[in-house]
Amino acid sequence: MLISELTRLSGTPAPTIKYYVRERLLPAGERTGGNRTEYGDEHVHRLRLIRALLEVGKLSIGSAGAVLAALDRPDQPIAETFEVAQRALARDAVTDVAEPSPEGLARVDALIERAGWSEWCHGNVGAGIAAQAIDAFASAGHPLPDHYLDAYAAAAEQVARADVGEVAGIRDPADRTELMVVGTVLGDTLSVGLRRIAQAHITAERNLS
Amino acid sequence: MLISELTRLSGTPAPTIKYYVRERLLPAGERTGGNRTEYGDEHVHRLRLIRALLEVGKLSIGSAGAVLAALDRPDQPIAETFEVAQRALARDAVTDVAEPSPEGLARVDALIERAGWSEWCHGNVGAGIAAQAIDAFASAGHPLPDHYLDAYAAAAEQVARADVGEVAGIRDPADRTELMVVGTVLGDTLSVGLRRIAQAHITAERNLS
Repeated sequence: MLISELTRLSGTPAPTIKYYVRERLLPAGERTGGNRTEYGDEHVHRLRLIRALLEVGKLSIGSAGAVLAALDRPDQPIAETFEVAQRALARDAVTDVAEPSPEGLARVDALIERAGWSEWCHGNVGAGIAAQAIDAFASAGHPLPDHYLDAYAAAAEQVARADVGEVAGIRDPADRTELMVVGTVLGDTLSVGLRRIAQAHITAERNLS
Repeated sequence: MLISELTRLSGTPAPTIKYYVRERLLPAGERTGGNRTEYGDEHVHRLRLIRALLEVGKLSIGSAGAVLAALDRPDQPIAETFEVAQRALARDAVTDVAEPSPEGLARVDALIERAGWSEWCHGNVGAGIAAQAIDAFASAGHPLPDHYLDAYAAAAEQVARADVGEVAGIRDPADRTELMVVGTVLGDTLSVGLRRIAQAHITAERNLS
């Protein structure tokens, strides 16, 4: 198809498509003589993914590029792909925030021990993000007790079990990698929305005023 | 204390402090004759909270102002304060994203029914956020099955129960309101971090490759 058709099917204006190609988020189309460039269904598909990452996931162009690069290695192990997606996404999460404190990181390590999580977890990029949140609660005057952290950890494990189960159920490697990438971003947004609804439920249930 | 001391205690440069006062995030100090302006401990405290909201919570100045305004009404019911905090925070979450589709919203309503959550939940601001995530999964080619949404809902309920329990345990109304506000923002970041660690644990546990 030509770019006009790609614009129509994807809902993305032509200049934006060309920008994504320049930024290497989208593979270039195939030049077929003269000024004609042909695009395929894979471009429609990739454009939808890009929009999900940028608009709902709120990734920068640079981070979206790093995440999408993981799609070009569909045969790497699931654990590694998760890590690539997580690291790319973390670049945005930690921009212009202070480094996590040693105390915050120690509390995350202790949490991992209490949860009985694998030793692999200690170097995970999420440890720094969680430690920053723990630090920020403390410096805002509300240090978090262990039982609160443990409730969050149990919920995170439940969510991660659903994530990994869904991913492991997909046989096509490219498709599976894509779900890992898009799910890492969009799952956060889903959790944010549902947590707010659940807060409304619990306050109603406890009849708090 | 003078602004130099406030800068030292809060780690915030004087021009930034004056900017926050102009933007009404921070109450002005008290003029005490000549060019002297006096600040108190409440300014140190509020500055830490502002930094937590802006740097870790990634709120815009406008949204942070709306959230902080909730602190000036410490006697309002818990359910209402949660709602104020949620709405202020949602302004950033939904910027420049398409409206949720009727299908996405219908799936959230069905989820609320299946979870047995209160009828109060249907109008919650989180419903729109969750519906946008559900839409984005679908348009990226990965529509989410109900059992996946239900796993997320169960986890969200667990987190919300910890949130509300912590908040309800605080007797001082101003302090309680502050935890609701700061916890709504920072709890999201905590969940993001712990979800990534838990994904690493589950992939290791299942020995996926």
